[in-house]
Amino acid sequence: MARAETVMRRCDELASCSEDAERITRPFASDAMRHAHEMLRGRYSGSGTATVLLGSHLDSVRDAGKYDGPLGVVVAIEAVQRLQEAGRRLPFAIEVLAFADEEGLRYGTTYLGSRAVAGSFPMSELDRFDAEGVRMRDAIRGFGGEPDRVAEDRWSQGDLLGYVEVHIEQGPMLESQGLPVGVVTGIAAQNRYTVTFTGEAGHAGTVPMILRKDALAAAAEFILAVESEARADRQLVATGGKISAEPGATNVIAGRATVSLDVRSGDRASLLVGSRRMLDLAEEIASGRKLEVKVTTDARNEGVVCDPGIVALLSRAIADLGHPVMEMTSGAGHDGVEISNVAPIGMVFVRCRGGVSHNPAESVAAEDVGVAIAVLDRFLELLAAR
Amino acid sequence: MARAETVMRRCDELASCSEDAERITRPFASDAMRHAHEMLRGRYSGSGTATVLLGSHLDSVRDAGKYDGPLGVVVAIEAVQRLQEAGRRLPFAIEVLAFADEEGLRYGTTYLGSRAVAGSFPMSELDRFDAEGVRMRDAIRGFGGEPDRVAEDRWSQGDLLGYVEVHIEQGPMLESQGLPVGVVTGIAAQNRYTVTFTGEAGHAGTVPMILRKDALAAAAEFILAVESEARADRQLVATGGKISAEPGATNVIAGRATVSLDVRSGDRASLLVGSRRMLDLAEEIASGRKLEVKVTTDARNEGVVCDPGIVALLSRAIADLGHPVMEMTSGAGHDGVEISNVAPIGMVFVRCRGGVSHNPAESVAAEDVGVAIAVLDRFLELLAAR
Repeated sequence: MARAETVMRRCDELASCSEDAERITRPFASDAMRHAHEMLRGRYSGSGTATVLLGSHLDSVRDAGKYDGPLGVVVAIEAVQRLQEAGRRLPFAIEVLAFADEEGLRYGTTYLGSRAVAGSFPMSELDRFDAEGVRMRDAIRGFGGEPDRVAEDRWSQGDLLGYVEVHIEQGPMLESQGLPVGVVTGIAAQNRYTVTFTGEAGHAGTVPMILRKDALAAAAEFILAVESEARADRQLVATGGKISAEPGATNVIAGRATVSLDVRSGDRASLLVGSRRMLDLAEEIASGRKLEVKVTTDARNEGVVCDPGIVALLSRAIADLGHPVMEMTSGAGHDGVEISNVAPIGMVFVRCRGGVSHNPAESVAAEDVGVAIAVLDRFLELLAAR
Repeated sequence: MARAETVMRRCDELASCSEDAERITRPFASDAMRHAHEMLRGRYSGSGTATVLLGSHLDSVRDAGKYDGPLGVVVAIEAVQRLQEAGRRLPFAIEVLAFADEEGLRYGTTYLGSRAVAGSFPMSELDRFDAEGVRMRDAIRGFGGEPDRVAEDRWSQGDLLGYVEVHIEQGPMLESQGLPVGVVTGIAAQNRYTVTFTGEAGHAGTVPMILRKDALAAAAEFILAVESEARADRQLVATGGKISAEPGATNVIAGRATVSLDVRSGDRASLLVGSRRMLDLAEEIASGRKLEVKVTTDARNEGVVCDPGIVALLSRAIADLGHPVMEMTSGAGHDGVEISNVAPIGMVFVRCRGGVSHNPAESVAAEDVGVAIAVLDRFLELLAAR
């Protein structure tokens, strides 16, 4: 528990690195970020030439919690510290990474740090402006970086055995199962659509039910159909989170209703089948009600499958510690999406209270952090013995 | 048909009385209204002392059609004209009324004209302001009226045998049944509610379906339940026309969703039972999903039953002309709601294309207007013979 307490205290210390005295807000290339970076160091040399990457991101959303990101960095440091203090030399080096832009708060981008490491940094992004008109190029320079040399940040220091990230779950599954940690098997693929039903506006008092072409009723039927489809496939989640009805008056039947659809799955086939089925249902609902429907595809994201070898070692580490192994798909995106281009990846999720994240109420138990540290220790030993 | 053509031409002429050269907009106590009034005259003396009131309203919504209101006034004039031209003296007088404020465009009020006649004019309304800061009291004075003497407008000229209004249907029922006219048996009672479901906002990617408390899904279920309840009772119509979801983002499960509910029925018991059942369903849906629901009652309107004697005479008039008699409830409000306080009322609906109203596309066939005129003629003869 002493190590977990150290990690918790370091998360508290990192929380003091903020643009805002009252809240945690740590955008890309900010002074708050520099301050956080100054607190961290991390390279451990191995007896061989290969390297394992451990870490997470240090940037935050606005008014963030203490753990989304920093926990993974600090736990990684703790794992290295144990090896250093014990004078233990593993056959591989460990590099602790603290990425600079996973949330995309400042520039509306994502994964800038991990893209640099993965060699997929989009140079055109350097000309984006933040809300105060600061060009990204200048923000990086001000931070002490050299924007034109970002390409050189691509990993080039030998074989990568893997990238392992510890992260809070940001969901309620572990809590509901009473487990401290879980092993991530993949980062969900995701499709986003806008679905618009067009019927006929009409007087709420004079048009009888059987003659209505109520666009909002069609949208309601669609929202429930989506929910029911997603419930039928354990891998799927689907959400209609945004809705509007026009003209949107109490006494007027809606002539048009627009719903957003966000579909995710740990399995690409399940995403494909589920999304297709949902859009087919939109057509069926519209035609059953003699309405029109129009679907716009806003995003398609392929997702990433975690490396089976790393998943197996992390699972064994969890089992060795006496915990049931729960495999999970990450519904949210993570830096591993980019790092998977240069290294096999794996992730460990840590239970967080109520599944809450992106919120000062984010909360993690020191006991669970203790388990995560032990899992990482054990994983490194298992990897060394492989 | 010549008489129907006269009515159609007079509707066209009244359409030229507008605040706006391009569209029909004729608010309460406006110059446009004065102009319309100058075109109209209407009192026919009977051989007895009792009076029948015929008419409708002349004010309009913004960008209105030609028939919602004016048709009933002009058809009434046509009925009187036939009697005058034929030198026919009925045992009752006929007063043609052209009400000044049914739509409430200028002051957000309704039925100002019919309330004056019914003796229910709310004197406190005189201090309302229009959008340009003109007090109603001053608008009435500018129009040539005496606001402080509104109470004297209450009908006091002897027995009222009834008030009969011809009006476009504003719905699609007559069109769907292939009928030119219908007889109104009542003006719907109406309840309005705001229903708010509160669940738990959450990440669209990380909260599994079974652990969600999706307020928008609950609202969707409610909208469909309302629709299905209303479909089960031929007298009911119910509409969720307005909706909002919070936070209202594509990738966030809605934590709160608010729907408007407008329920109407020609039968008060049906309204009571239907509304109660819908609100019970809101509770059931919320509790089935472990959400909270809050209901606010925004309006309760008791509706009016048309006089059975007048309904019977109008029905017989329609049947005598060889048309099937279709009884209908008016889902929209009309001046008869107020006049029912001083006289038995009845209404005749005229088929309008597509059920469209409050729109320049409002359209009525001259043939159907011819039927409405003949129905009114016949009604007056039947009443005289009673």
